[in-house]
Amino acid sequence: MFVAINYISCSESYRERFEELFGTRAHAIDKMPGFKEMFVLRPNTEEGDYLIVSHWDSEESFSSWTKSEAFIEGHKRGFADIREAKAQGKEPPMHSRFVTYDVISR
Amino acid sequence: MFVAINYISCSESYRERFEELFGTRAHAIDKMPGFKEMFVLRPNTEEGDYLIVSHWDSEESFSSWTKSEAFIEGHKRGFADIREAKAQGKEPPMHSRFVTYDVISR
Repeated sequence: MFVAINYISCSESYRERFEELFGTRAHAIDKMPGFKEMFVLRPNTEEGDYLIVSHWDSEESFSSWTKSEAFIEGHKRGFADIREAKAQGKEPPMHSRFVTYDVISR
Repeated sequence: MFVAINYISCSESYRERFEELFGTRAHAIDKMPGFKEMFVLRPNTEEGDYLIVSHWDSEESFSSWTKSEAFIEGHKRGFADIREAKAQGKEPPMHSRFVTYDVISR
């Protein structure tokens, strides 16, 4: 099994909006081949990253999703917020980085 | 639902031993009240941390585990490796830090 974690640092003022986006997410990812489940994790520390943890049957399934229409659809509102901030010459309200993992034990 | 992640940085020479420890783990945690499941994640980058991800019904259940006999039992061999390195005046072969999260969406 394969796990991808998107580590997202949010500005303080964007956290409410960020949580709203995930609370009303498109669920486009759920229909992707090889998708198992996902968890949106809010850190119990003020400074910590949010984690979007998705479980897949293989790296290939994850990779296909990142190149899919569903990926663009699923991130549409967040991407728009980032574009808008940039257009106004502001810092993007969030930064993200993917790290991928193999599940070696349970 | 509540998630605890133990971020573990391993020295290069300890990785094989570390994976063996988790591949033959005691499963003492599995019987704890409120424990749901766990995943041991190996990073797909040379420098990245291993992640031990455990899912619980509540923060209280996680907290009870950290104070239990099962916690000591489950970490016995790893703790012994760290003690041995220290006794020999060497760097510990791994460092760990817990970060906890609430699951806000799935």
